[in-house]
Amino acid sequence: MNDYTVDFNEAGDGVRILDQTLLPGREVQLELCSREALCEAVVRLRIRGAPALGVFAAFSLCALAAGRREGPFDGEAELSALRADAEALRATRPTAVNLGWALDRMLNAAEVFVRRGRDEGGKGSAEGGGEGKTEPPAGGAGGERAAFAEALRAEALAVRGEDEAMCRAIGEHGLTLFGEGDGVLTHCNAGRLAASRWGTALAPFYLAKERGRKFTVYADETRPLLQGARLTAWELSRAGVEVCLLCDNMAGELMKRGKIAAVFVGCDRVAANGDAANKIGTASLAVLAHWYKVPFYVLGPSSTVDLTCPDGTSIPIEERPGEEVTKGYFAAPDAPEGIRVFNPAFDVTDHRLITAIVTEKGIIRPPFGPKLRALCT
Amino acid sequence: MNDYTVDFNEAGDGVRILDQTLLPGREVQLELCSREALCEAVVRLRIRGAPALGVFAAFSLCALAAGRREGPFDGEAELSALRADAEALRATRPTAVNLGWALDRMLNAAEVFVRRGRDEGGKGSAEGGGEGKTEPPAGGAGGERAAFAEALRAEALAVRGEDEAMCRAIGEHGLTLFGEGDGVLTHCNAGRLAASRWGTALAPFYLAKERGRKFTVYADETRPLLQGARLTAWELSRAGVEVCLLCDNMAGELMKRGKIAAVFVGCDRVAANGDAANKIGTASLAVLAHWYKVPFYVLGPSSTVDLTCPDGTSIPIEERPGEEVTKGYFAAPDAPEGIRVFNPAFDVTDHRLITAIVTEKGIIRPPFGPKLRALCT
Repeated sequence: MNDYTVDFNEAGDGVRILDQTLLPGREVQLELCSREALCEAVVRLRIRGAPALGVFAAFSLCALAAGRREGPFDGEAELSALRADAEALRATRPTAVNLGWALDRMLNAAEVFVRRGRDEGGKGSAEGGGEGKTEPPAGGAGGERAAFAEALRAEALAVRGEDEAMCRAIGEHGLTLFGEGDGVLTHCNAGRLAASRWGTALAPFYLAKERGRKFTVYADETRPLLQGARLTAWELSRAGVEVCLLCDNMAGELMKRGKIAAVFVGCDRVAANGDAANKIGTASLAVLAHWYKVPFYVLGPSSTVDLTCPDGTSIPIEERPGEEVTKGYFAAPDAPEGIRVFNPAFDVTDHRLITAIVTEKGIIRPPFGPKLRALCT
Repeated sequence: MNDYTVDFNEAGDGVRILDQTLLPGREVQLELCSREALCEAVVRLRIRGAPALGVFAAFSLCALAAGRREGPFDGEAELSALRADAEALRATRPTAVNLGWALDRMLNAAEVFVRRGRDEGGKGSAEGGGEGKTEPPAGGAGGERAAFAEALRAEALAVRGEDEAMCRAIGEHGLTLFGEGDGVLTHCNAGRLAASRWGTALAPFYLAKERGRKFTVYADETRPLLQGARLTAWELSRAGVEVCLLCDNMAGELMKRGKIAAVFVGCDRVAANGDAANKIGTASLAVLAHWYKVPFYVLGPSSTVDLTCPDGTSIPIEERPGEEVTKGYFAAPDAPEGIRVFNPAFDVTDHRLITAIVTEKGIIRPPFGPKLRALCT
């Protein structure tokens, strides 16, 4: 595995990722250079996980801009091309707030660059092109284009660098929530593959392993797309962490037997009251943890908190094609032809079922509302 | 689909079943004539479901006895061969109480036959074979053998006939527990394929359909072996019942959205206090139903009640091979090679989470203890 889940190709005009749909059987690197290929990778879950999607979105806009090399540099034209790219990427996964957040951040960096160029251009020379056109401040159109690309690249690298630092901080805080010899349960993949490097919900396990702690991670396989079996079990076992795989419907039995000291899950969006959207099945795990008196922790960067959603009911839940359930990863048809399917990709965990929310800024416990507001302001 | 899930072959020396591991893609009839083939069918889940296993066990002992045609009829030798067959069958699925119950019933019928033959033989003639040998009461050794086979066959058919009537009665009672337009959730397969004809937990749906009621059955796919997707969705949709398939981890989301009026599940064993063992994942559904205030019904024949188990902790839980989870029905490996797996086949639902237990004798509600004792005596 690469050090980074998301990287640029050599030329800087493409995004390099491991095709996560082929894991754990095959490790195939992809180099994605077109808007279509980048969007397809998100839709088909070749890259997934809220923080990784944010980094991927930032890298995508940067690579697409770097790929537009024809003609004179036109700031407004660049901006509108970038905005079209951003809208296409934004439409791929409606539930993931980080993706939109990273796109907005990149668009903002581009706008700042173009505005500054326009202001400087307007100041330096009264003649020249229309309002939208910027004069190259130095070194001709090539220099302007290179400077624009450099500004976007710096912003994308900043998004990733901050994500890496955030994940590590989440790991440090999460580390305090389980002890030597514990069994901890996780769902889906909120690991390295879902972020830039350490993961979110899995970050504490990488740090604990580095520090020589003994523990077992129980990984839900996470139907329909098996991110737990294919990705979490793969990345943790490669790092030498002891992992035990189970079907989603077996988690309650582990809790009943007293094998689970805590549940650690990631999140795609956290509402202002602490309700947390994450992979389908997470909310049910929280109900089970509540019944069996197991602490339930939601881990994620503070950028996942969306104060514009007062509670979970305003978080949109993506519904995905039924074929993921009936044909997903199966050799033979596992359901009758044409059967109706219910396949929501996410669910929302009621804040009353969450023991604590862990971000890079620390651990917060109920009541979440005021603490989440403080966290984000 | 045959009218009966378990039947004799033409010669009466084999058991005919549909290979349930090949559904829904292929419908293959098997004719099983040896102890090995019969046991293998149970172990590999070609036939499964508590009531069907009881019928299958009865038919198996009968077919194996019918297949032993060599030499003079020796009652004691027949009994010890039957006992050996029964022990092999009993060892295949330790959790299913009906299997052992049907085996004991067949052994008892065989013992009664042999004892009567011996008594009559002893009465009728003082000369003749040793103590274990019985004299043919009429028609020579062939007649004795035929009479023995007929006695076993009558007992096996009685087991099935009673099961059919029981399932129908369960259906009649269950029918009163949901209404027009309701959505009802089920787990695994407690249907026709799991019994002789009507099923247990699914019997109310077949009867409701016959009577023109409109409703939707939501079927958990039921990992790892997908009995819900492969069997429940198949048999209900073939009968024209509206079915919607979901992954196990999506059931809570349906309940949260108010789509589920009731949960109907089968049972493999019910302890004296009402704790009920059933397919892994059932207990977690009960916790979810409790949280979302959805009634949770356990349906099964009264023979499933085992008063010798005071509560669920004394019900043995079968653990099955990890390959069912990592390789079961998948084309590509869905987990890293050699990963540790937790794969219990059953779990026990706490009686406090059960709204009512439905048997052929009626609907009982808490407190279950005294009512279950009354039911079985």
